[in-house]
Amino acid sequence: MARAGYAEYPPELTEAETHYLLSNVKDWSIAHGLAVRPSPGFVPQERDPGMALATTAPVTLFPSLFPRACFEEALAIQQSYNKLYSGIARDEQWLRPIIEELKDVDSFVADLWKVHVAVAKEGYAQDLSLGLFRSDYMVHVDPANKDAAPGIKQVEFNTIASSFGGLSSKVSALHRHLESIGAYPSPLSETVNATSLAPSKSVDSLAAGLAAAHKAYGSPREGRTACVLFVVQDPERNVFDQRHLQYALTAKHGVPVFRLPFSRILADTELASDRTLLYRPPHAAATAFEVTTVYLRAGYSPDEYSGAQAWEARLHLERSRAIKCPSVLTQLAGCKKIQQVLATPAAPHVGRFLSSASEAARVLATFAPIYPLDAASEAGREARTLALDPATATRYVLKPQREGGGNNVYRAAIPPFLRGTPEQHWPAYILMEMIEPPAQRNAIFRNGEVQAGGVICELGVYGVCLWRHGSGEILENWEAGYLLRTKGDQSEEGGVAAGFGAVDSCCLV
Amino acid sequence: MARAGYAEYPPELTEAETHYLLSNVKDWSIAHGLAVRPSPGFVPQERDPGMALATTAPVTLFPSLFPRACFEEALAIQQSYNKLYSGIARDEQWLRPIIEELKDVDSFVADLWKVHVAVAKEGYAQDLSLGLFRSDYMVHVDPANKDAAPGIKQVEFNTIASSFGGLSSKVSALHRHLESIGAYPSPLSETVNATSLAPSKSVDSLAAGLAAAHKAYGSPREGRTACVLFVVQDPERNVFDQRHLQYALTAKHGVPVFRLPFSRILADTELASDRTLLYRPPHAAATAFEVTTVYLRAGYSPDEYSGAQAWEARLHLERSRAIKCPSVLTQLAGCKKIQQVLATPAAPHVGRFLSSASEAARVLATFAPIYPLDAASEAGREARTLALDPATATRYVLKPQREGGGNNVYRAAIPPFLRGTPEQHWPAYILMEMIEPPAQRNAIFRNGEVQAGGVICELGVYGVCLWRHGSGEILENWEAGYLLRTKGDQSEEGGVAAGFGAVDSCCLV
Repeated sequence: MARAGYAEYPPELTEAETHYLLSNVKDWSIAHGLAVRPSPGFVPQERDPGMALATTAPVTLFPSLFPRACFEEALAIQQSYNKLYSGIARDEQWLRPIIEELKDVDSFVADLWKVHVAVAKEGYAQDLSLGLFRSDYMVHVDPANKDAAPGIKQVEFNTIASSFGGLSSKVSALHRHLESIGAYPSPLSETVNATSLAPSKSVDSLAAGLAAAHKAYGSPREGRTACVLFVVQDPERNVFDQRHLQYALTAKHGVPVFRLPFSRILADTELASDRTLLYRPPHAAATAFEVTTVYLRAGYSPDEYSGAQAWEARLHLERSRAIKCPSVLTQLAGCKKIQQVLATPAAPHVGRFLSSASEAARVLATFAPIYPLDAASEAGREARTLALDPATATRYVLKPQREGGGNNVYRAAIPPFLRGTPEQHWPAYILMEMIEPPAQRNAIFRNGEVQAGGVICELGVYGVCLWRHGSGEILENWEAGYLLRTKGDQSEEGGVAAGFGAVDSCCLV
Repeated sequence: MARAGYAEYPPELTEAETHYLLSNVKDWSIAHGLAVRPSPGFVPQERDPGMALATTAPVTLFPSLFPRACFEEALAIQQSYNKLYSGIARDEQWLRPIIEELKDVDSFVADLWKVHVAVAKEGYAQDLSLGLFRSDYMVHVDPANKDAAPGIKQVEFNTIASSFGGLSSKVSALHRHLESIGAYPSPLSETVNATSLAPSKSVDSLAAGLAAAHKAYGSPREGRTACVLFVVQDPERNVFDQRHLQYALTAKHGVPVFRLPFSRILADTELASDRTLLYRPPHAAATAFEVTTVYLRAGYSPDEYSGAQAWEARLHLERSRAIKCPSVLTQLAGCKKIQQVLATPAAPHVGRFLSSASEAARVLATFAPIYPLDAASEAGREARTLALDPATATRYVLKPQREGGGNNVYRAAIPPFLRGTPEQHWPAYILMEMIEPPAQRNAIFRNGEVQAGGVICELGVYGVCLWRHGSGEILENWEAGYLLRTKGDQSEEGGVAAGFGAVDSCCLV
């Protein structure tokens, strides 16, 4: 059999082939920590109150097909993206008007900005900032020209708590293992083989980023021991993803790491008079560790800030001399509105941060057009025309500006939705051109069950960037591996449970 | 605090210390495959019919204390034990009268012997035999002289399906990890530290043994691909223990491995005309792999031989040209009766297999005296006197000769038990001097719960031996790491659930 195309992939398996594949997925995953704590729907909490059970993380049984040129381009431009977003995060002058405008529709953004303003007034105690970024893309095939080469279009850029870097390395290793033991039927070997399966270095590369910040922080004062803090949600079902980063950081770089629930920040840390962040572990409270780097795997969602205490905790971290991954400004740089401002057709902003015209052009080529919906700007007026016309609306999605906000409105549903919404609320939305990925199928193993059907794949490319806020000097900047996340295609009935994602890896074609 | 003694170890932990220790145990174990499928008591089968859940393998929270001299002696004599048991397994002349005598009380032994006789009549097609052995010991403190140095006494010698070699390397790594991150309170560091924690190399070393056999087998014939078969029980809750060996064998030695349920031997394998063992995987039945080595992780218990088909399957494997780990004769060499014959006071047998007097003496020193209970021999008559006298019986345990037989009878319960048993049945038992380990405590994490109390530790030392049956030439002989298995002390009420074991590692003192 020649190389499989999207239509023939993956093949139907016999019962014996399915059994062999699945038993190897189930055992290899647990033997190698490609795992999550089971959801309450799978194991009710009362059966396992201490959370001692685990199960295979939702994974695809096959690596999904992904165009090699798209994959390589996405990896190649990550350093430019790191430069772009580190530049945005330190450019308060550029950020302020955008954030000011957004504050009225998004109180979460307003509250984050208040934290920055308060710390800026006092003066930041730490000039270094660390970003562990992830830029997410889908493959786009121009619906008007299906023969054109596919390209990548950005879905979003994550500047806080980019997840799955721990599991991504594991799932690419799983798919390579399955290929090596013959768990994929042999006619597939033209398509799925050691050359086409792309490993992800994300675990080691993200851990190296944290280690670089830890080292750049310098020696701890007063003879203290230095550590990195992972600020986490508690409980956390995706804990192994985070633990793999921790274990790599400790094993390969000798860095002590502690996990601190977001709700325990004020109880377990304090600021010394020089605003050094001190952590006293509850199990050894006599020892004060000096925190070099705060890695936030929590604090990204408005839901987590239930009251004044949570904001006080965030301010407390931001005031400290620890390096934040990310700082409040870096988190704000990742909000949807910024993406829209950059991606509005004919917008000049990317050139402000990327002085090389060719570099800027490569980044711009990955933007799907995004429009504001205001009545004042030219782009906004253009967007209203596109969104209200049923003929053009079918190429768009309407998204709320608000972070963590409500549901998106797709295609033909947009014109009636807008007509039913008071016009003064329209600016709370952005209009984004739909990305049209190639149709493909896969099978997802999740909660002990297999579901097969049409899927949509999203490629995330990790980036590490360490920079000085004041001078803009970039100390470290590298591409840090990838994640492929695959979910049921919402447009297909009876397929993989729509919207539920699985970790995946790329079979390059 | 100075080095902790048995009485102070392990220390009581605060709630915060327990939380830190336990959350690290729970996460590290799953992230590194120190896992089992949960028991039906923990997760009912209907909740997880596909066996997709896993949980931490039962482990001790602390490494148990173990005398360094005992540990080193047990490892040092393993090569002598390998020589002894490989010698026994090829000495049919010596084995036959013992087995003949045993056949009347143990039909399982009789049936195994029949397999050997049938193959011997036809002629064995493979001269090489592989043993992955495990010699189990307890530390013995002479109750009459508590100040004497402790020694090791053998509990049993396993020649088939020696388990936990996969998990043992993991649990020693877990305890080292916990020590390195400060999960043990710092006053313990005099006792528990990088020098006192003994790593176990069992995974790599046992995998190297299988690789050595695979290589010694020679090239496969007729252009076939060679493989190793793990013959397993199905379902198997301890599957990750076995998978770790498989993954090491494949990753480090490039050897293809398949798992074959015992019940599928006849369906999925066949003998070529030269008695080459061919395996056709159900998922790729067009390909016949040539099996170099059959590694039995099943077939050791009478329960598994439910009918003529099971015995036919065992005969089929034994007739084949594959190297068996173990052969039927090697399995028989491990039966309890052989241990008794060797360990009967003043018995001359060890010298027959170990020509060096000093080597024989070191092995003999690890035997606890074991007596037959027949009326004819001098040792048997002596045993009857010891067992019937309530004053001496308290130092002994009465064990059925039958493999996989009923329960042991301990100490004061022996005289009334024997008096209630017809005298002609007494020879179905052996009398063994009790091993008296030092009292110690630990906490076991199992099924999501912690139980603390008095425990008993058993040290298993793995051995790899590859020999020629005909000439007796030993091609490979090495000590292959260790297992510490710890269970609740049956003599202590309210302690760790009596008899339920956990994997552990040695903290040498």
